[in-house]
Amino acid sequence: MGKKRILVIGGSAAGPKAAAKARRLDETAEVILLQKSADLSMASCGYPYYVGGFFNDRNQLLCTPTGVVRDTKFYLNAKAIDARTNTEVASIDRKAKTVTFKNTASGETGTLPYDKLIIATGAVPRMPPIPGINQKGITTLQSMQDADYLRSIRDEGKIKRAAVVGGGLIGIETCEALHLAGIDVCIVEMMDQILTFLDPEMAKIVENHLKTKNVHVITSNGVAEFMGKDGKLTGVKLKNGNEHVCELAVVAIGNVPNVAIAKEAGITIGTTGGIATDEYMRTSDHDVYAIGDCAEITHRITGKKILAPYGDLANLEGRVAGENAAVGDTVTFPGTIQSGICKVFDINAGSTGLSETNARRNGFDDIVTVVNASGDKPGFMGGLLLVTKLVADRKTGKILGAQVVGPGDVAKQVAQWALAIQGNMTVEDLVNADLPYAPPFSLAIDHGIATAHLMQNKLKGRLKGISTTEVKRKLDAGEKLFIVDARGDDEYTTMRLGIGEHLIPLGALRKRLDELPADKNAEIICYCKISLRGYEAALAIEANGWKNVKVMEGGIMAWPFPREK
Amino acid sequence: MGKKRILVIGGSAAGPKAAAKARRLDETAEVILLQKSADLSMASCGYPYYVGGFFNDRNQLLCTPTGVVRDTKFYLNAKAIDARTNTEVASIDRKAKTVTFKNTASGETGTLPYDKLIIATGAVPRMPPIPGINQKGITTLQSMQDADYLRSIRDEGKIKRAAVVGGGLIGIETCEALHLAGIDVCIVEMMDQILTFLDPEMAKIVENHLKTKNVHVITSNGVAEFMGKDGKLTGVKLKNGNEHVCELAVVAIGNVPNVAIAKEAGITIGTTGGIATDEYMRTSDHDVYAIGDCAEITHRITGKKILAPYGDLANLEGRVAGENAAVGDTVTFPGTIQSGICKVFDINAGSTGLSETNARRNGFDDIVTVVNASGDKPGFMGGLLLVTKLVADRKTGKILGAQVVGPGDVAKQVAQWALAIQGNMTVEDLVNADLPYAPPFSLAIDHGIATAHLMQNKLKGRLKGISTTEVKRKLDAGEKLFIVDARGDDEYTTMRLGIGEHLIPLGALRKRLDELPADKNAEIICYCKISLRGYEAALAIEANGWKNVKVMEGGIMAWPFPREK
Repeated sequence: MGKKRILVIGGSAAGPKAAAKARRLDETAEVILLQKSADLSMASCGYPYYVGGFFNDRNQLLCTPTGVVRDTKFYLNAKAIDARTNTEVASIDRKAKTVTFKNTASGETGTLPYDKLIIATGAVPRMPPIPGINQKGITTLQSMQDADYLRSIRDEGKIKRAAVVGGGLIGIETCEALHLAGIDVCIVEMMDQILTFLDPEMAKIVENHLKTKNVHVITSNGVAEFMGKDGKLTGVKLKNGNEHVCELAVVAIGNVPNVAIAKEAGITIGTTGGIATDEYMRTSDHDVYAIGDCAEITHRITGKKILAPYGDLANLEGRVAGENAAVGDTVTFPGTIQSGICKVFDINAGSTGLSETNARRNGFDDIVTVVNASGDKPGFMGGLLLVTKLVADRKTGKILGAQVVGPGDVAKQVAQWALAIQGNMTVEDLVNADLPYAPPFSLAIDHGIATAHLMQNKLKGRLKGISTTEVKRKLDAGEKLFIVDARGDDEYTTMRLGIGEHLIPLGALRKRLDELPADKNAEIICYCKISLRGYEAALAIEANGWKNVKVMEGGIMAWPFPREK
Repeated sequence: MGKKRILVIGGSAAGPKAAAKARRLDETAEVILLQKSADLSMASCGYPYYVGGFFNDRNQLLCTPTGVVRDTKFYLNAKAIDARTNTEVASIDRKAKTVTFKNTASGETGTLPYDKLIIATGAVPRMPPIPGINQKGITTLQSMQDADYLRSIRDEGKIKRAAVVGGGLIGIETCEALHLAGIDVCIVEMMDQILTFLDPEMAKIVENHLKTKNVHVITSNGVAEFMGKDGKLTGVKLKNGNEHVCELAVVAIGNVPNVAIAKEAGITIGTTGGIATDEYMRTSDHDVYAIGDCAEITHRITGKKILAPYGDLANLEGRVAGENAAVGDTVTFPGTIQSGICKVFDINAGSTGLSETNARRNGFDDIVTVVNASGDKPGFMGGLLLVTKLVADRKTGKILGAQVVGPGDVAKQVAQWALAIQGNMTVEDLVNADLPYAPPFSLAIDHGIATAHLMQNKLKGRLKGISTTEVKRKLDAGEKLFIVDARGDDEYTTMRLGIGEHLIPLGALRKRLDELPADKNAEIICYCKISLRGYEAALAIEANGWKNVKVMEGGIMAWPFPREK
């Protein structure tokens, strides 16, 4: 019997990780990696930051932490992996256990046998069938070539206006990159919100921030036509007839798993369009694994199969498939809770687990949500705002999801919630969590713990919260509300909602109860900057006999609509 | 029946939180807070940063996030709490359910009845019985007055040399503050390491960093005498006879729970010296609660009662006692896993759960540790180093503790491990954790997940690790080792250990196996900058027949001893 041959198709994130893991576990196996493009192990999540000028050396996207470019020579010498670039796999013959390939540079073709095959063919950008889409000036930001193209636009400095089609993660990152390149950017999003991993009111906070940077955000609209002249883009015509002049358009409306060769080989494709996998990352063929953006995986909360094209998961899946291919199926991949984060100029937006929208869509009906706003650190240490929306199961108190937005340390907050969810923790567990505290790093009561406190108060029926969205709806519907802003006069002078609120500072409230509606059943809504004083005001009012008192969650800091001042 | 009266003794962190919580749950109760000092709700953890000049407005230590100073008027108006400052409680009569107090300003005395009593009397600085300790120029950094005194020293700029007695958390924070005030600082620590919440080799990394700031760190030595002239400090004489000239000494050798009035009243004091409490934060008297630094609480991993004088826990305990005092004993406090963190100039040091030392001291014998070093983000996004030591239970794989040190995002890492511990998670759970990834925030494989990978490899017997300390011990003992540095020539030229290592770059290793010892049983130790290449080198060497190959964990980045270059 010869050496075991492990063949990996795809050289971006998942593939190289699988190959490296297989090599570490079996020094004698033959490990061959076939990569369609010219580069290997591209840090593709870094493309927007290269385009945006966060760094200038292209090689940094391709090299190890110590600065060695991960090329074929590196793979051969340091990893003993036979990595072949410009090598496209044309077909898989599962019976013969071979793949046919073609060198796109030399035209050379060939056949390679395998004992274990790992498919990491990634995804291709979704391109809408819109007239004019093939003109010059229209691109995606998915490949090293795309990054090179957009970076050259930055460096040339000629293009002044761009449209980003799609307000998802990559769209928003691209928007910032182009803006930093001195380009006026307009985002066109079909849905009625950007960043659909966030609930609408949280996404609105991000949208508001984009607008402060003079980014033109168009929602509930799509591109009807890419206008052009002499094959070059001159603008986009929207579905509502509006036209937007631009010389560049970046299409970022998502990816489609690249499953062509797997499908042709008769490997089962899941309902999501990704290659179906089991917990060992095996496909329907037990000698074939699929990992990364081409594969579907399990959502750990809903149990459903989903596509989760994230670079971090690709690496983890690669590690699992690499081990199983090398030493037999022993390790499993549990799936995803869809943790994600992005930087949006001066704020950050992240999410883990289920949003309210996603929870309801997946049949979680008895859920409770709460919004909390506070600093990430004490003011004297330069604390920055965080707004968190937490979703929990009412009966069990189990944390289902959290979204965090703001200039503060969003990454830490989302990481905390991600582990809370993966540890099956409940609101009660979080209420008394012991986290590392010192003033340079967090508040004495960490923002996340305070959010759990609010949720506990809500679950116990003490905090009767109302969302900013619901307050806005009531106002728009002309409902009769008595609204109390519980802040101080000075604060009111510099910033206020102007929604018909009555300014009754918490410190004066107990002496000014006579200003409240005579009808003890009147709907009263309290808030302050972050609704802590609003909460205390509501409790005091309620204790004095009013029966329908609510706290507007997150206060002014979470109010995503226009305000008077 | 009159109103319920809830009496709180102590107005720093725990007391006010308990009083506020009680008020929120019972608008009609009488809530009285007796505070010995002139200030209320002092952010005492912020004192070092005020002294160090991170901010200049003293009121920021005393005010709400919106800038309102939390004085007696604030408590009365906003919280409906009768907070009395300069009011010292002299005794508790548990039978009569009264306390006697004395106003330290006016001399007025009185008696107050209570239905529920909450003791939050804090702790007092431990002062060693050393000759000369009562001279001018010797202080602690525990009270607002201490902070004012040290801040005035900063502002005056006259004092040039100081000794900090004690290398714990407060000692280190004070050291930085004084250094920032332009004062030469010497730390004197009795133990053989600073920051004993860290294992020695991790503490050594912090000590090395302090030395780069010209802080003089003296360990395994104590102060024998505070030398002086005319009642003013002139220097410290150490136990080994050395003298150190200084005009200021800050004693930071820990706290003693302030339990005098509780003890006199016959309330049970625990073996730790703190007031004994149950999970409701009740003392031996069921109408009396104890919270904050004066109380002992449960260590959630060892189950033992301990003192955990942390500001964040004080708040959480206050919230529990406040609720129980107001509405009956319904909520519990689970205790602590001793999460802590501090900023040390340009690096951070944090810990959660058990260190190796603490685990062994508490009878956890079958444990495994691993050290990992990597960036917190990709190099192209300005990633900074993190060094983590993870402690896990061998049989169950349960995470017992983690220590993280470095210039990188230590707070997020420690928070992650803290939640992993509180979620009873195992190494296997962490190996495929789904955390929020994007290049501005973390590596594609987060540092913490990579640490779990190393631990998994170690538990599976694939990674045969050896600590830097053990390598040093073997070198000092003259043991015969064959040491392989697996980095590149250029890296070796700019930085190297110089411990007799052989430079064999990983990329050349498989062709240079003949340079390894002929004896296949020879002890071979591999490393690189962070020991990832070191690990791959070890696996390749082992696969070629050598039987005793180890990886020096954390590589050069975790080497806490002097190096050649």
